[in-house]
Amino acid sequence: MSLQVVLRAGRAVRGRLPLSSVCHGARAVHGAALRSTGRRSLLVAAGAAVTAGLVAGYGHLQRADMASVDHGEDLDRRVAAFMAPPVTELERLRRSGGDMKTRMELLIMETQAEVCRALEEADGGAGFTVDRWQRTEGGGGVSCVLQDGNVFEKAGVNVSVVYGYLSEESIQQMRSRGKDLKTKDGKLPFCAMGVSSVIHPKNPHVPTIHFNYRYFEIEEADGNKQWWFGGGTDLTPTYLNLEDVVHFHQTLREACDQHNPGFYPKFKKWCDDYFFIKHRGERRGVGGIFFDDLDSLSKDKLFQFVKSCAKAVVPCYVPIVNKHKNDSFSPEEKMWQQLRRGRYVEFNLVYDRGTKFGLATPGSRIESILMSLPLTARWEYMHVPPPESREAEILNVLREPKDWVH
Amino acid sequence: MSLQVVLRAGRAVRGRLPLSSVCHGARAVHGAALRSTGRRSLLVAAGAAVTAGLVAGYGHLQRADMASVDHGEDLDRRVAAFMAPPVTELERLRRSGGDMKTRMELLIMETQAEVCRALEEADGGAGFTVDRWQRTEGGGGVSCVLQDGNVFEKAGVNVSVVYGYLSEESIQQMRSRGKDLKTKDGKLPFCAMGVSSVIHPKNPHVPTIHFNYRYFEIEEADGNKQWWFGGGTDLTPTYLNLEDVVHFHQTLREACDQHNPGFYPKFKKWCDDYFFIKHRGERRGVGGIFFDDLDSLSKDKLFQFVKSCAKAVVPCYVPIVNKHKNDSFSPEEKMWQQLRRGRYVEFNLVYDRGTKFGLATPGSRIESILMSLPLTARWEYMHVPPPESREAEILNVLREPKDWVH
Repeated sequence: MSLQVVLRAGRAVRGRLPLSSVCHGARAVHGAALRSTGRRSLLVAAGAAVTAGLVAGYGHLQRADMASVDHGEDLDRRVAAFMAPPVTELERLRRSGGDMKTRMELLIMETQAEVCRALEEADGGAGFTVDRWQRTEGGGGVSCVLQDGNVFEKAGVNVSVVYGYLSEESIQQMRSRGKDLKTKDGKLPFCAMGVSSVIHPKNPHVPTIHFNYRYFEIEEADGNKQWWFGGGTDLTPTYLNLEDVVHFHQTLREACDQHNPGFYPKFKKWCDDYFFIKHRGERRGVGGIFFDDLDSLSKDKLFQFVKSCAKAVVPCYVPIVNKHKNDSFSPEEKMWQQLRRGRYVEFNLVYDRGTKFGLATPGSRIESILMSLPLTARWEYMHVPPPESREAEILNVLREPKDWVH
Repeated sequence: MSLQVVLRAGRAVRGRLPLSSVCHGARAVHGAALRSTGRRSLLVAAGAAVTAGLVAGYGHLQRADMASVDHGEDLDRRVAAFMAPPVTELERLRRSGGDMKTRMELLIMETQAEVCRALEEADGGAGFTVDRWQRTEGGGGVSCVLQDGNVFEKAGVNVSVVYGYLSEESIQQMRSRGKDLKTKDGKLPFCAMGVSSVIHPKNPHVPTIHFNYRYFEIEEADGNKQWWFGGGTDLTPTYLNLEDVVHFHQTLREACDQHNPGFYPKFKKWCDDYFFIKHRGERRGVGGIFFDDLDSLSKDKLFQFVKSCAKAVVPCYVPIVNKHKNDSFSPEEKMWQQLRRGRYVEFNLVYDRGTKFGLATPGSRIESILMSLPLTARWEYMHVPPPESREAEILNVLREPKDWVH
């Protein structure tokens, strides 16, 4: 596993970092940050790379330098609002404003900042810790984690932008999904980026949310470029609150319907199928949307769709948080939440593709991959809630997914 | 998944069950138990079969009926001490006293009872709940679980005796370990049995223990029978106590040395290699012994070795429990225990072969497989103990295994 210097600092530090030096490497940054701010920051030696299934080597997928002359000031303004400087050098982003990789990197950084700020406001106490890390093999990321807040037990919002050559395992996995990939000497240069998040609240009446939006480019041996989008947003409540679930699905449906009326029903079902804990015969939660390998429309149209989904994260979730964050709850309700957290761990460690490939991949940043796990979880032998109880009510829904909006 | 009627009852119920009816099927037993005892017992519909990687069909591996005339009274005496009646009918066990399957079934039932009784005594409060279950495809098991006792947070000791045809996945896995297996129409009749246990105490100064001893028989297409033993015992402390670890390894070493001076060093290393959490670069604990596919000596010699290992479980562990069960501990020490429990979950769900195959296998009894998970666990982002701390001390040992006895 390659070791990298990682900058870890409170969010307040970030705004003071000289962007130009940050974008040239974390080592330089760290020194600069320490000297220029004098605030608490921490050097951590850690492996890098969150996107799963990647191995060594710098790829050929250089950003197309399509200059966008009127892009300068707007870019500075956008970047200033991020939780940390973007992974790609600012000058390169400036020169390639029309390239999808640039547009997507800015979108995922922006989504990270929007979600983190909205959660900090809802929490009213704790702030996100920001870790900016680099991956020797190419790229890096920004991990934002809030732990033990007023409202949130553990909230992680992670961005990664990585490139290099795909691992054998990833190539096989993509082929098994039906992709026709022409390699050269077994190699496939790629670029992958995404924002990925899991938010575990303290109160059992506030549900857990997960979302992830990602973009892939692959360059085949004959120069052909493949690309696709993937992603989704899904909700995992401890107890069923019909109004909340309908609001959540309705907000996602509206985001989808702007682009294609077939998207929501298709991606809703995909979500129910994907988040299935087979050995329990239960879904992880009440679903949402999930999609992968999306390349059937133009890049721009699909980007606009993904952007709508990303923009829907805060409105589909934060109102539910605010509605329930002060609800009273019993020790029994907290315990049921902890048992459901155990199932969350089971799904993530046993089935989740990203987690599995991440763990199997040398050079992965394990702490970023496993930040999806809850702060605490519980397993009881033969726990069966009484029929007609509120615990049995949510179990029924997890066993037989419903249509929440029509 | 096939549904089975399962008898769940307090241990006190067991002694009153009419053995002859029990051994002819759990349905009959349940009625008998309810009527004859009137105590709390519970019908649970659940899939059956703990041993991983098994599928439908009754196998050809009938117990060789080697009568053992002077075996009668002795057998009754042994069986009366078990936590529940054995899986195989008593009459059949009586008729086949010299067969290895009979000898092993009696050993694992006996080990289960010895360990459960010793743990109940050490706990001084809670007793084991006993679930006796059957598997439609062939065989069954006895799961004993103690939860939320004085000393133990969660303790499971499970016996399973299953037969039928091996799954494709199991055949492939065995071949990948180097076994040459001749199938007939792709089928391989097998019989597998074992005792498997994980004990999680409450006090962070009392370590977790795991042990598992198992016996396999396979009948190839040409009538050739393959057999082997597998197993091991390993310790997972939250904090390093040198005296405890030396006692544990020394007891295992003595059990091994009675049979072959090469066993302990070989199986100690195998254990360190097997219980490796690759993505963390850490072992799960301070090791012990682990072995598989053991068939290089006579059946009887290896059985005697496995018996010594099984008999060593109580003396290698219970003195450590009694020594530390009343130790005082701080909230910080309890929290470090919970973080280590998180790593235990990671190993079991991501790497453990038995768990993985069990979860992937239709008809498995999930509650018995996952009883190995702790009652509670914790994951913190970027938790790094201070150097020179007691937390860092055990981490160093988990990263670089030591030789504890010479």
